[in-house]
Amino acid sequence: VPELRTPLVGARFSLSAGVPDPRLFPRAALARAYRRVLQSRRGVRSLEYAEAGGTPALRDAIATMLRSTRSIPATGDNILVTRGSQMALELIARALVSPGAVVAVEHLGYQPAWRAFAAAGATLGGIPLDAQGLVVEAIPAAAGCVYTTPHHQYPTTALLSPGRRLALLERARRQRFAIVEDDYDHEFHFDGRPVPPLASNDRAGNVIYVGTLSKTLAPGLRLGFVAAPAPLVATLTTLREVIDRQGDHALELAVAELIADGEAQRHTNKARRIYASRREALASALQRELGHALAFELPAGGITLWARVADGIDLERWQARAFADGVAFSAARDFALDRRARPFVRLAFARYNEVELATAVRIMARALG
Amino acid sequence: VPELRTPLVGARFSLSAGVPDPRLFPRAALARAYRRVLQSRRGVRSLEYAEAGGTPALRDAIATMLRSTRSIPATGDNILVTRGSQMALELIARALVSPGAVVAVEHLGYQPAWRAFAAAGATLGGIPLDAQGLVVEAIPAAAGCVYTTPHHQYPTTALLSPGRRLALLERARRQRFAIVEDDYDHEFHFDGRPVPPLASNDRAGNVIYVGTLSKTLAPGLRLGFVAAPAPLVATLTTLREVIDRQGDHALELAVAELIADGEAQRHTNKARRIYASRREALASALQRELGHALAFELPAGGITLWARVADGIDLERWQARAFADGVAFSAARDFALDRRARPFVRLAFARYNEVELATAVRIMARALG
Repeated sequence: VPELRTPLVGARFSLSAGVPDPRLFPRAALARAYRRVLQSRRGVRSLEYAEAGGTPALRDAIATMLRSTRSIPATGDNILVTRGSQMALELIARALVSPGAVVAVEHLGYQPAWRAFAAAGATLGGIPLDAQGLVVEAIPAAAGCVYTTPHHQYPTTALLSPGRRLALLERARRQRFAIVEDDYDHEFHFDGRPVPPLASNDRAGNVIYVGTLSKTLAPGLRLGFVAAPAPLVATLTTLREVIDRQGDHALELAVAELIADGEAQRHTNKARRIYASRREALASALQRELGHALAFELPAGGITLWARVADGIDLERWQARAFADGVAFSAARDFALDRRARPFVRLAFARYNEVELATAVRIMARALG
Repeated sequence: VPELRTPLVGARFSLSAGVPDPRLFPRAALARAYRRVLQSRRGVRSLEYAEAGGTPALRDAIATMLRSTRSIPATGDNILVTRGSQMALELIARALVSPGAVVAVEHLGYQPAWRAFAAAGATLGGIPLDAQGLVVEAIPAAAGCVYTTPHHQYPTTALLSPGRRLALLERARRQRFAIVEDDYDHEFHFDGRPVPPLASNDRAGNVIYVGTLSKTLAPGLRLGFVAAPAPLVATLTTLREVIDRQGDHALELAVAELIADGEAQRHTNKARRIYASRREALASALQRELGHALAFELPAGGITLWARVADGIDLERWQARAFADGVAFSAARDFALDRRARPFVRLAFARYNEVELATAVRIMARALG
């Protein structure tokens, strides 16, 4: 598995990091909710050892959200609150993977997830991708588990097509493999409504659903979750006790308040509008400054854009020169299981406003020039 | 490894849990510090991905505290901030233990630590204990690692004697095993000053030091730390990224403020006075109500008391009847690597005030019948 990188370090503009803009985050509302929690009787309890699976208020709030906006038939018993999606993936890997087991992953994909599976002893097998997402027929026959990002494929942003979704679920049922569905930025879908997850149509019980509040709220809060059958949630909870005992219940209660009083949804709606506008701004700047160098379609969702690099451009040299001038961006190689270069770049647009994006693209154009 | 229990569930009084009284915690001060952090520029940054090893402000604050109060020559580079001591132990186990390696543990000890070592594939070997702590000569010859609680041995509260300390360090140097020193309640020493940790006298570099803010502040905050040579800290940090990416930097900054402005130390000093008084209150109540059933010495430190149960008492029956009447307490068997019963109980006194402790002891006496 390739090395982890800390994507925000070292550059004036990091278009590498598919992260939200922390300047938009309702910091005052969170601070108020946290104070209210700490001043309450349950706040006193939240300072003690408590449920390893998460505070019931947040588990219920997440389950309600999954039922109402993602058609996933979950109750609080189906939810484990984790430290971001990373801990969710780590626990799932521990629960599912025996040393040597084959975990199939999209051949361009999310390395931190791969590292969790590899740490549990998995052999990773690549699944090819095309414009409709992962190619179901090409899933390795030996796969005991498939890790996938079907909503906005990471990093290509491809939406897994309806036919592929049915084929994947059917193959999982037949071949009896687990599907780990990482729906890391479900809410940021701009063209039409978000597509319901695989987990909403999982009659055979093969899908383990992973979500995060890192994109809608903030990565630094380290709040993610698993939605799965209650017995698996119980197993994952036992594993969690060994590595982390439990989460921070005062924070979990504060975030549950932000969800219950509508603050979280208002923030997400506002962020979605702003990110949609930033998507346009990035696309315009790219067409204006780098139309000869990059070809792309507007992503239907997600907070990154995937672009093909024209023939004859030395991508590594461009990356290095842009980085020296203050702009970090990722290339396909940074996401490749085989570590091979391919002529694509990924540009994240949520963290910067229109002016900043235009500046960053000008720097990129100059670095190419 | 025996099962984990959630010690606070189900009883009116839990004397099982060696935890602080959350009613004493400076909740308003923490809420204010958290708000100040979130309102600052570094608060915006704290919402993003950041250093996996902890925010530099808290690492430095912990290093300063270790230098000034525990004679451990640490700088921020020697500190990894973790989610409580549990994550510290989990990461150390992953870094040190190969499957089948022997980890020697005190034969009555801290099961959650054992579970982390066992999960990494360790074979656990027991070390006998006496009134001076672990018996150094009886450490299994095959041990590659010794896990110990030398300050207030968990659960017997024995203080490892000066001679044993030197012998343990010398044997670690000769036999080249690592010592994982879990100093879980360093500050709560009532008779004289706390004894400097093994790590303060570790010339050969064999000691990995684990501490926690769970006892001085609150378990629910999930803040612990490792102090170790910088290369090992770097290794542990890489392992941490896989399971948890990073900590909650907003909270870490807020707690660093509480340490920097003296609030944390004032709270610890106040709690120490209060717990010393509760120690006396528990001892008096036990002598009054259960003098015929229990023999004990006042512990020099820690927030629990270890008592021998008189011959002829059916300890399991007593535990069950007391639990039915609202008082949970632990027996030696709950801490035993061999799961065998021994005639000792552990009674935690920090979480309840003098009146509550007297009530709990009366219930225990009645349950004994």
